[in-house]
Amino acid sequence: MPMLDLHDLPISAFIAPDGSNRQAVAPLLEQALQLALDYAAQASELPPLPTAMPGLPGTALPEQGLAEEQLLAHLRSLISASLHPAHPGYIGHMDSLPTTMSLVGDLLSAVLNNNMLSVEMSPLFSRLEWTTLRELAQLFGLGPRAGGLLLSGGSLANLEALAIARNQILGLSGGALTSLGARPVLFASAAAHTSLHKAAMLLGLGSQAVIPVPVDESGHLDVHQLPTLIEQAQARGDRPFCVVATAGTTVAGVIDPLAAIAAIAHRYDLWFHVDAAYGGALIFSEQLRPRLAGIEQADSLTFNPQKWLYISKTCAMLLLRDTSLFTQAFRIPVPYMRQSEAQGEATDDTPPNLGEIGLQGTRHSDILKLWLSLQHLGRRGYARLVEQTCQLAMLAYTRLRTLPALRFAHPPETNLLCFRAEPDWLPAAAHDELNARLQSALLEQERIFLSLPLYEGRRWLRAVLLNPYTDEQVIERLTTGLARLLEQERQQHDSSQAPGR
Amino acid sequence: MPMLDLHDLPISAFIAPDGSNRQAVAPLLEQALQLALDYAAQASELPPLPTAMPGLPGTALPEQGLAEEQLLAHLRSLISASLHPAHPGYIGHMDSLPTTMSLVGDLLSAVLNNNMLSVEMSPLFSRLEWTTLRELAQLFGLGPRAGGLLLSGGSLANLEALAIARNQILGLSGGALTSLGARPVLFASAAAHTSLHKAAMLLGLGSQAVIPVPVDESGHLDVHQLPTLIEQAQARGDRPFCVVATAGTTVAGVIDPLAAIAAIAHRYDLWFHVDAAYGGALIFSEQLRPRLAGIEQADSLTFNPQKWLYISKTCAMLLLRDTSLFTQAFRIPVPYMRQSEAQGEATDDTPPNLGEIGLQGTRHSDILKLWLSLQHLGRRGYARLVEQTCQLAMLAYTRLRTLPALRFAHPPETNLLCFRAEPDWLPAAAHDELNARLQSALLEQERIFLSLPLYEGRRWLRAVLLNPYTDEQVIERLTTGLARLLEQERQQHDSSQAPGR
Repeated sequence: MPMLDLHDLPISAFIAPDGSNRQAVAPLLEQALQLALDYAAQASELPPLPTAMPGLPGTALPEQGLAEEQLLAHLRSLISASLHPAHPGYIGHMDSLPTTMSLVGDLLSAVLNNNMLSVEMSPLFSRLEWTTLRELAQLFGLGPRAGGLLLSGGSLANLEALAIARNQILGLSGGALTSLGARPVLFASAAAHTSLHKAAMLLGLGSQAVIPVPVDESGHLDVHQLPTLIEQAQARGDRPFCVVATAGTTVAGVIDPLAAIAAIAHRYDLWFHVDAAYGGALIFSEQLRPRLAGIEQADSLTFNPQKWLYISKTCAMLLLRDTSLFTQAFRIPVPYMRQSEAQGEATDDTPPNLGEIGLQGTRHSDILKLWLSLQHLGRRGYARLVEQTCQLAMLAYTRLRTLPALRFAHPPETNLLCFRAEPDWLPAAAHDELNARLQSALLEQERIFLSLPLYEGRRWLRAVLLNPYTDEQVIERLTTGLARLLEQERQQHDSSQAPGR
Repeated sequence: MPMLDLHDLPISAFIAPDGSNRQAVAPLLEQALQLALDYAAQASELPPLPTAMPGLPGTALPEQGLAEEQLLAHLRSLISASLHPAHPGYIGHMDSLPTTMSLVGDLLSAVLNNNMLSVEMSPLFSRLEWTTLRELAQLFGLGPRAGGLLLSGGSLANLEALAIARNQILGLSGGALTSLGARPVLFASAAAHTSLHKAAMLLGLGSQAVIPVPVDESGHLDVHQLPTLIEQAQARGDRPFCVVATAGTTVAGVIDPLAAIAAIAHRYDLWFHVDAAYGGALIFSEQLRPRLAGIEQADSLTFNPQKWLYISKTCAMLLLRDTSLFTQAFRIPVPYMRQSEAQGEATDDTPPNLGEIGLQGTRHSDILKLWLSLQHLGRRGYARLVEQTCQLAMLAYTRLRTLPALRFAHPPETNLLCFRAEPDWLPAAAHDELNARLQSALLEQERIFLSLPLYEGRRWLRAVLLNPYTDEQVIERLTTGLARLLEQERQQHDSSQAPGR
């Protein structure tokens, strides 16, 4: 089978399906794998964040392609200038060290290049996604009609959840919002994720349609204020349709009182969505899953294995208590595609065309890396990861509390810790700047990266203890490093205040 | 650096950043690479679609993880039960054979696990995406303020384009649609992609808000009817805000008259969006880019390298003529993230936080495989691929026209061909079933997979001649196979009509 006359192409441009260029392609791929391995197995030697940007070719669109040696050299530069979430000192964001099976899954997904749009285009992966998510929905206790689909990120899962809630509760079924007399509104805690505001903007509700419910002292949605806010909205003539609870808030990792919120949402006939993008992983631990009590009452649920299940980006899911709503309150048919036998009815193992019931059409087969990782680590392996990283957060909390200048946002409920230095020798107005300096100095001197989120109007230091190679020694360096930096800050402050200056 | 006590985990669960388990992980990854290579270099031996589903473990959530050997065995089963778009006879959908650099890029993206949400979380890749898409916007002629971002699929790119058009033209800026008196509507050809209807549903416009413009005989949006339809909508009290042209329709691959549509859209002060998800690749060929004349007038443009640039799924982009509209008409800030210096202003090489100006928050670094493939093949390599696959479609058109029973939807304008058998010895009502039988028989007897889309109320056979290893011999087998099958059908029909039966 001769190739077309593609003489301007490098010989290794594609893997020839007849094997005719295997000898050219194999060394290239093997070198790429060695690069990946060399990088991952030495990530501890790098700084958590890169320190300089490399020189790259002047154009992304060269007339003539580069030689492979040049490409591999550029690839080395690109790697060194990237973020290094594999570094045990990278504890600033919810970016995890990926499972080995994520690498295997993403490599095989690329070479297979199946399409989650339809069963015809991904016969095995569509089934695997549908049955795996049905099992996960059972694990969350969502009942016999529950299941869901994967989406490329939690923002999309939240968007689809709110779209289905809007269409179902307001009886829109594809109609226009302009036909409604009242403005639809939803409720979420003031600490809920900003993707809800993006979703409200996109859905035509306006980002102001997310009515913030104040949080109590421990960072939870204050259930005592929720009924009042719902009734005030009704009295204003707005149309409440949904309450969102968060299981694992972005900044502090705390878990809203799910059962109490579910009861209120259903008392007012509102949709109950749980954004468990982060905290959903607790369901894998028999010991910790009671923290999610009430999640089984969710009408819809967002859960991101790309976070605490250590799947490489992206891997997020939307679960529905009743999968027939995918069809009734969302589905847009794809007429150029063979119809699947099941149109959203989860009666057996035959999935619908997932591109018709999901936000995305063409979609990557993220299910492969998720399924492989679940098979490799087992439920028990994930339980250990969740439990041990929570213990590590408790250890960090205990150690850091020995520093009197630190204030903690809340006691940790997952593996996140949010705190800030508020020493009494510095005026409160200077505390934000101090914490920014502490963040930079920790990165530079201790190779520990904390993030610096804005929370309740102030800058905080935030640790996400996700990396399984982040150990007691990192916590110790964090504690002693912070103590030393605070002492240096105090001395500098004292000397600048001294009369001789 | 000792790991936490994770004794329930397999030793190769992660690649230890201190290199301590490299000897356990390396063989596993090398075996996975060999699996991928063995598969890709023998794809010609497989059928284009799998013939059976494998037996898989009874649960996706085993209590204890499986041994690596078992996992690799399952992986082999999964591969064999997948779609095989690498097969030269797989010419049914816009699923391409991936570039070798797609595999390299996806492997390295997985191991780096950077996050396109923010510059802090993907310092190099955010810059690379911003500057590469600026260059691509220039290639399309979109002007000095143009640029864009990647999204996980073309449906998302179209959704964000329409969201920005809606917010900008209707002056919404995050407000609610219910405050508008009139119903917003947009216009697209009857052959435009169904993702526009999904977007209209999501955006609160209702899927009926996409007003279909009839196509002319050659499958193009009929520009003579467009002004009338716009004025009728205005007269009804609706609020037109956007016209969508398609460059490369899904079923037939034809290109709407972009310049004429642009002129009408702008005459009525409407947003002009071009869905060039497929046909945009023509811009790489000096010879063929005149077919896209007028695309340089787009206010927004969707282009999917995951199709005709042979990048593995997903890789899609939204380009804007003026990137400041990302900020003005879309941006939702992420307060827990360090702000980038540039908030959507494309004045230099510093990108904004892409998760603030895009639909998605956490996002995979698709830019790596795109950038590597562009560097590897060069503009000239892509020009050859586009030109030669168009020539192959013309060859197929010429050969298949020798079969008198075939009717063609339109002459090919890209590398798609859409046709159906309408033999005069069979009543018209039986033609849909005949074409379905032809599709099945071609797959079974010739290992050629055509899709069977519904188009203008009828079933058609559709060839997408994307695979560079699909050559003249496949076209010959298609032609002679169809001739033989049609002759068999006629004989069966004749004998069933014979008086003796």
